[in-house]
Amino acid sequence: MKELPSITKLTNSFSKLPGVGVKSAERMAYAVLNMDPEDVGEFSEALKQAVENIHKCPCCGVYTEDEICEICSDKGRDHSVIAVVSEPKDVLALEKMNSFNGVYHVLGGVISLSKGKSIESLSIDSLVEKVDKGDVKEIILATSATLDGETTAVFIAKLLDGRGVEITRLGYGLPMGASLDYADSLTLAKAFESRKKI
Amino acid sequence: MKELPSITKLTNSFSKLPGVGVKSAERMAYAVLNMDPEDVGEFSEALKQAVENIHKCPCCGVYTEDEICEICSDKGRDHSVIAVVSEPKDVLALEKMNSFNGVYHVLGGVISLSKGKSIESLSIDSLVEKVDKGDVKEIILATSATLDGETTAVFIAKLLDGRGVEITRLGYGLPMGASLDYADSLTLAKAFESRKKI
Repeated sequence: MKELPSITKLTNSFSKLPGVGVKSAERMAYAVLNMDPEDVGEFSEALKQAVENIHKCPCCGVYTEDEICEICSDKGRDHSVIAVVSEPKDVLALEKMNSFNGVYHVLGGVISLSKGKSIESLSIDSLVEKVDKGDVKEIILATSATLDGETTAVFIAKLLDGRGVEITRLGYGLPMGASLDYADSLTLAKAFESRKKI
Repeated sequence: MKELPSITKLTNSFSKLPGVGVKSAERMAYAVLNMDPEDVGEFSEALKQAVENIHKCPCCGVYTEDEICEICSDKGRDHSVIAVVSEPKDVLALEKMNSFNGVYHVLGGVISLSKGKSIESLSIDSLVEKVDKGDVKEIILATSATLDGETTAVFIAKLLDGRGVEITRLGYGLPMGASLDYADSLTLAKAFESRKKI
């Protein structure tokens, strides 16, 4: 007996997800057969709806269901401060802190030699355009504190240098709630560097 | 900014899968947005098709797209030897060793005190019926080598005792504590070879 075609197809689809290998994908496919058919219907519909309803905001690159995302269309926010992030989901993480009132610019990745991601594949041109229009006061480079995130931040900082805009980078240091002896030495060194008077 | 409704729905659906927590589900939902829309369409369709096309064989309980599964309808197989397994996917694992020519009976689970699964929820009655018809020579209890699998095997062995059928259990080539569907074909074949009367 061979695997049923319907299960093979489903396994293939699941294995395209991040962190899901063939064996897990197979388990998931069989789990679907044990699920409430109504739940599976909702699942199938949710996938279709996601692709149909969601697109990237033409202004900042965040995922949205509206024409322009709610951040870009919010006149109460400070459009002269732009936080530059790598992925749309990073915006959600930053919004959760509830203290940033500027707007965002999503690069759509980071420069990565190992993954073969070059500058051309990121939306950097549109960022330069925004800056050149002259209404931007500050660019906060909020890419991850990884090698690729750093490389990207340094690259953009150089590119925007001399265009009359203040360029800042997220502060480094100990994550809140972390004990000192669990922090790696690079983080500790960075925390020492960026120490402040209290 | 709140999470988009379409993403929330998709995250909910993913989190219903085995081994997928909220954080992984969220990652998967965002990964879908980065996927080729055609792939997502196929994924959505595969889910729908799986529920529509696949049902359990009324004869043995294996998942099938036909009225009766190909094993039960195969006259070349020995219908007097029945391997009793816990889940439909176990049949696939056993079929991969290519050396068993009998048929199957899927219980739909194992007796489990911890999961509150009792004897009534398993299809044991239909197994007894098959035996009582008198055409069955051997019942191979091929449940997993776990506590629950053992309990179930012993229970069925006692139930069928004295009904004129030989009852065997998979040999202990299976490493104890392992799930049947994770065992390799060679181990499974060895286990079949060394099956013993209980």
